[in-house]
Amino acid sequence: MKFLATTIMSFSLLTLALAQAGRTQVSSDNRTRTVEITRNGSQPSTRGPAENFTGSVRIDPLFSAQSPARAGGASVTFEPGARTAWHTHPPGQTLIVTAGSGYVQQWSGQIQEIRPGDVVRIPPGVKHWHGATATTAMTHIALQEQLNGRVVGWMAPVSDEQYQTPNVNQ
Amino acid sequence: MKFLATTIMSFSLLTLALAQAGRTQVSSDNRTRTVEITRNGSQPSTRGPAENFTGSVRIDPLFSAQSPARAGGASVTFEPGARTAWHTHPPGQTLIVTAGSGYVQQWSGQIQEIRPGDVVRIPPGVKHWHGATATTAMTHIALQEQLNGRVVGWMAPVSDEQYQTPNVNQ
Repeated sequence: MKFLATTIMSFSLLTLALAQAGRTQVSSDNRTRTVEITRNGSQPSTRGPAENFTGSVRIDPLFSAQSPARAGGASVTFEPGARTAWHTHPPGQTLIVTAGSGYVQQWSGQIQEIRPGDVVRIPPGVKHWHGATATTAMTHIALQEQLNGRVVGWMAPVSDEQYQTPNVNQ
Repeated sequence: MKFLATTIMSFSLLTLALAQAGRTQVSSDNRTRTVEITRNGSQPSTRGPAENFTGSVRIDPLFSAQSPARAGGASVTFEPGARTAWHTHPPGQTLIVTAGSGYVQQWSGQIQEIRPGDVVRIPPGVKHWHGATATTAMTHIALQEQLNGRVVGWMAPVSDEQYQTPNVNQ
């Protein structure tokens, strides 16, 4: 069973590798020995799906986890008022704010404002959300590691009432 | 022995956590349940040491690996002409170029130019270097994971002859 899962994962990674355009050098297997450069502009932006995000959210992929490394990353841009749903990351997550200003809040905690250069560490399993302020966009790089194949657990949306609380800790 | 190593590592991580300034909320143990924000400007810049770098290199720490996550990251700025020594990363490394333009080269490969938004994946164990061009600075975020406690293996400097090769692949 473990072998089967490993085989499926290896095949998936290989398929992903072959499907990714824009690389100057493409490996012939998973155990590549070649430095790979994914050029800016070669990976299409996607939209944050409505079931996991409120408002307009753009996801620009950066890199996917490739064994033995477990971490993958993307740049995520939230238009004013946009935010994730409540969610958790089994092994945690790190956010590096790169533009604008936004918010992060954990369940039963205060909303905290975050700005470019701030680094946010979300501990494993902690229920939280992040997004833009009501009047400014926010972009962050989001880095997370896979743990037993799981990266994120999505929950309910952040309601307008939860988002508009005046309880902001700057 | 394994228990001893785990204990030492746990203690080291705790010491590191306690030593880090600039956090708005500090955990009382490694298994924190609190979102931590490390504010921009709260972590001192350091210099890339001469035994591992040629020229002027500034390292701005972003975040350190915190179990169960294995990845840590820093922003690294190379002044014109500056570069790493040849080195390897046991589980590989990912570079996200954020400013300027620079070079990356693996052993016996061509020098390749890299620009903002490019993502460079260094496979595990591949001997390589990265740095600025001769005339422009370059900044990248460097992300790497620990594998059996090892992050990097340093080798010989990149000689001027190696650096000044006209064999650049743009």
